Amino acid sequence: MPSRYLNFRCSVPWLILSLQTLFLIRSFFVFPGAGDIYSPSNFYPEFQDVNHMVIFGFGFFLIVLRRYGFSSTGFNLLLIVLGVQCSVLVDDLLVFLSLQQREIGMRSLAKAVVSMTAVAISSGAVLGKASPVQLIVMTLVELIIFYVSRCINRTLLQVPEHLTLMHVHLFGAYFGLAVTSRFPAPAPGLDKHRSTPKSDLFSMLGTVFVWVFWPSFNSILADSKKQAVLNTYLALAVSAVAAFMLSALTSKDGKFRMTHIHSAVLAGGVTISYTASRILQPWIAMILGLLGSVITILGSHSLQRCFNRALKIQDTCGVHFTFGLPAVLGAVAAVVLLVIENGIHKQWSNLSSLGYLIFVDIGAFCQTISTALITGLITGLILNIKLLKAVHVSKYFDDQFYWEVSFKMISD
Amino acid sequence: MPSRYLNFRCSVPWLILSLQTLFLIRSFFVFPGAGDIYSPSNFYPEFQDVNHMVIFGFGFFLIVLRRYGFSSTGFNLLLIVLGVQCSVLVDDLLVFLSLQQREIGMRSLAKAVVSMTAVAISSGAVLGKASPVQLIVMTLVELIIFYVSRCINRTLLQVPEHLTLMHVHLFGAYFGLAVTSRFPAPAPGLDKHRSTPKSDLFSMLGTVFVWVFWPSFNSILADSKKQAVLNTYLALAVSAVAAFMLSALTSKDGKFRMTHIHSAVLAGGVTISYTASRILQPWIAMILGLLGSVITILGSHSLQRCFNRALKIQDTCGVHFTFGLPAVLGAVAAVVLLVIENGIHKQWSNLSSLGYLIFVDIGAFCQTISTALITGLITGLILNIKLLKAVHVSKYFDDQFYWEVSFKMISD
Amino acid sequence: MPSRYLNFRCSVPWLILSLQTLFLIRSFFVFPGAGDIYSPSNFYPEFQDVNHMVIFGFGFFLIVLRRYGFSSTGFNLLLIVLGVQCSVLVDDLLVFLSLQQREIGMRSLAKAVVSMTAVAISSGAVLGKASPVQLIVMTLVELIIFYVSRCINRTLLQVPEHLTLMHVHLFGAYFGLAVTSRFPAPAPGLDKHRSTPKSDLFSMLGTVFVWVFWPSFNSILADSKKQAVLNTYLALAVSAVAAFMLSALTSKDGKFRMTHIHSAVLAGGVTISYTASRILQPWIAMILGLLGSVITILGSHSLQRCFNRALKIQDTCGVHFTFGLPAVLGAVAAVVLLVIENGIHKQWSNLSSLGYLIFVDIGAFCQTISTALITGLITGLILNIKLLKAVHVSKYFDDQFYWEVSFKMISD
Repeated sequence: MPSRYLNFRCSVPWLILSLQTLFLIRSFFVFPGAGDIYSPSNFYPEFQDVNHMVIFGFGFFLIVLRRYGFSSTGFNLLLIVLGVQCSVLVDDLLVFLSLQQREIGMRSLAKAVVSMTAVAISSGAVLGKASPVQLIVMTLVELIIFYVSRCINRTLLQVPEHLTLMHVHLFGAYFGLAVTSRFPAPAPGLDKHRSTPKSDLFSMLGTVFVWVFWPSFNSILADSKKQAVLNTYLALAVSAVAAFMLSALTSKDGKFRMTHIHSAVLAGGVTISYTASRILQPWIAMILGLLGSVITILGSHSLQRCFNRALKIQDTCGVHFTFGLPAVLGAVAAVVLLVIENGIHKQWSNLSSLGYLIFVDIGAFCQTISTALITGLITGLILNIKLLKAVHVSKYFDDQFYWEVSFKMISD
Repeated sequence: MPSRYLNFRCSVPWLILSLQTLFLIRSFFVFPGAGDIYSPSNFYPEFQDVNHMVIFGFGFFLIVLRRYGFSSTGFNLLLIVLGVQCSVLVDDLLVFLSLQQREIGMRSLAKAVVSMTAVAISSGAVLGKASPVQLIVMTLVELIIFYVSRCINRTLLQVPEHLTLMHVHLFGAYFGLAVTSRFPAPAPGLDKHRSTPKSDLFSMLGTVFVWVFWPSFNSILADSKKQAVLNTYLALAVSAVAAFMLSALTSKDGKFRMTHIHSAVLAGGVTISYTASRILQPWIAMILGLLGSVITILGSHSLQRCFNRALKIQDTCGVHFTFGLPAVLGAVAAVVLLVIENGIHKQWSNLSSLGYLIFVDIGAFCQTISTALITGLITGLILNIKLLKAVHVSKYFDDQFYWEVSFKMISD
Repeated sequence: MPSRYLNFRCSVPWLILSLQTLFLIRSFFVFPGAGDIYSPSNFYPEFQDVNHMVIFGFGFFLIVLRRYGFSSTGFNLLLIVLGVQCSVLVDDLLVFLSLQQREIGMRSLAKAVVSMTAVAISSGAVLGKASPVQLIVMTLVELIIFYVSRCINRTLLQVPEHLTLMHVHLFGAYFGLAVTSRFPAPAPGLDKHRSTPKSDLFSMLGTVFVWVFWPSFNSILADSKKQAVLNTYLALAVSAVAAFMLSALTSKDGKFRMTHIHSAVLAGGVTISYTASRILQPWIAMILGLLGSVITILGSHSLQRCFNRALKIQDTCGVHFTFGLPAVLGAVAAVVLLVIENGIHKQWSNLSSLGYLIFVDIGAFCQTISTALITGLITGLILNIKLLKAVHVSKYFDDQFYWEVSFKMISD
């Protein structure tokens, strides 16, 4: 298939080159003066944690497929470095349109890296099916739409900035699912789709790595950092415990299943992300961690058996139950907590103000998820037009299509 | 053997569930008010280091056996998240009994994570032989006894808090050894017990990872942090050098042996743990690092050939010589340093006060090690009663007994 | 070949022992008083980052060869812990000779770890060919010469201290190349020289790990840290993007080549190292990152096809194009930026002062590179005298020559 290769060869580097040129030109014109960019900021260790988690941790975490290790790690790095630059560009544009205050230096980078998590999650859903060209287009479209969605939440619904960023899991998961639903399904007999004990071990190590850094991720932009750290740590601890418990309960013979552990240990961190800096009682954080784990494991059972088959969704890394469902639960929990808190503080008299707060939370949630699904579907359709479509179904899940690897060596 | 499986299936998740419920209830009732928990603490980067080391580092470090990678990493995570919660619970109980001052937030978590190292070390000794149920029971018993032992040291012998925590290696190693001595020995011909070059490489990477974070571990709760960091770094550096030297000297053909490197590079950090914040001369730290490495490598030779065979101890990860012997050396060194320091400062006149100090150090050491051995033996007996005994000797060291892994894939 | 083994066995441990004794004696006599060593320093998190990067990251990064994983990781650790101690010793000597001010505690260690990067890079060039004895001798000679070269730059040319340290990539790469050119070439048919997908995956993970920590590396000793961090991050991001772009452009079929990605993603960090704290416009940092990547990938093509074959250089890890060429580019860029900056600030009137500054930069560059090449050649000749020569060409790139690994296990 020389034409496909040619197509691939022609498009990837030129696409990257034109994007990079754009970012360069923009940094020449738009960047503020030096005094502004390099202002002091004292959260370098936290920034390093998040950076480490998103770039190394997710790259490690995504090594699930037998023959797709190079692409998992490599494309994750490529998408993130492209996305961070694109994210700063979009930030500038919003400042230019007066929709946002200018932010400076490290804080702007930190927000860009956190936003990139959405792309890392979405690329988990299409892992092995999308070519680099498709992934890059998806990254750009997703980032821009995520910024627009956050902008709507911030300006119309008055959601605080750092909370709009915490919709990143919800947006990433449902955008990725909508995109992957437009990809043709791989042939059923294909065994490249599976994991081996070695790739599972890598992936488990990556999961533990990401687990360790999650408190930094949830707290980096929060107002009350210590609280966010402690709540996230407790939620993560409980969800890791629950993951083992539920995995043994639900699987045959009471054995543990790696996929369960892999996804459910992180559920607590996702569930608590909206409310980590607001919860004042540790036991609430722990309950949320437990529920996050429960919904993940139940979801992984029911989704894989019924829902995915009915809707013909092929969710390679299981981002729906790893990130999507816990994020939905987190959003629901935020509303419930709001009602209870106000109830305790006897603000029932002031029902209209409570109603407004609830409306804001639900509104932000519905807006984010529906934007993600609709634009994801459209993106999926765009990615599968003939111009961009470079990967045949038989070439799915294979490093050899993108990397110079000799056949002889793979069989080693 | 359906009955065994059933037994296993029935017990693990319910055991975990009941524990988790206990922790939840306790966090509902006993936790102090919000203002207390989330007090400011500025040692988050160090806490992250220690957390990273114990959860990711030890999980990585324990991947020694060919077919036990999933369990090594997975169970390590499970035990630590259970243990941290249990540890906070025990802390509360001690506060309730007025045996300890209440501590707050992150500092309490940091102490819990440091205490968990004892369990991580003990589980290294029984690695591959204990089922999850046995491991969880061991974790709980060990943590409670370690807290009691620390409490005795603190209240009766007036040892400072952070020094009682540094007995963690000593306690963990001898408790683990005593427990493992009550497990039946695996069949001699079994080759699942061995490591492969790949598992050794993983384990080496894990060792280097743990090595890097050791200065944070020794300094996190110390009074004079910089001193503890520098002394630990020097001791670790010297013991890494000595590990290579002694490995080449003692093995056949002058080759390096991975087991030696694996255990001896960490010996310096263990040896210096009691005295890291007290030593004022760097060369003393370096000498301790050297001696730590010497005792580890000599120990590994003599123990594996004579002692272990005589006492029928099967110490899977070699925790006796990796953590036990250097910790004993460190305790002895603490006494010697105390005598010399006082001698230099001409306090020979005040012999009774010196005698008291020496008595305290030796007393704390003897109390810790004897508590560890005795309770370890008892725990080992309890773990091997019929009720808990789920693993037949022929199923030792095998992921397939606990995880859903297909035979076909393992042979890949 | 019993004599070779004997030779090897005799020399390694005794060489290490004598060095360690020397370091111990020195720490007994020369170390300043306790008050001086343990002065407060608040850059522990950055120090941990650099330490982590050099010890774990480079050990991981160097696992490229199929059968050389143990040695890559193990010897990297050994050389660094030896080198750090040696480096502190050389520091003392320079203080004694009044060529340098005394520095204290953690800062001295940080400088030692940064200097060790030169050795880690050089050992990448001779990876698999040099025995431990040769590596240790090389480490000591290289460190001493690097200190002398830095001393010349600092005293004669008045280059600021932290900039002299940033010549570490330049020095390490060309020293390593000169050393490796004196080693006999391996037989052409040898396939141990190659990488497997698994070793490439490890190496890719290591690269990403090093990538994450590079901003800490470039900023640890700089005056304006935030600026150095941001500029380095931007340069790294652009060079990672450019690496993928150029790899697809230059390779057959438009596939990505792992070697390209492996080396070019780091090029930006190397290129920016001299100027990271001086650049005030982000787009300049980005352009430098792009050029660094370009020169690395073009270099890797032209060097491997023509230059290396003509000069009979066997550069195992490709340090010439990974670290050498970007460092040269960085030095050139520093001069160009200096000229432009001064031109903008209308200092053309003061031509002699500008001329002096340019002379200093070019002088420091030429002195460093020529010292590296000449002393590297001499060191290469010394390492290959009969006394030290322990490895036959047929034993290159093989763990089994240095480690106790059974044949049976390797074939697993």
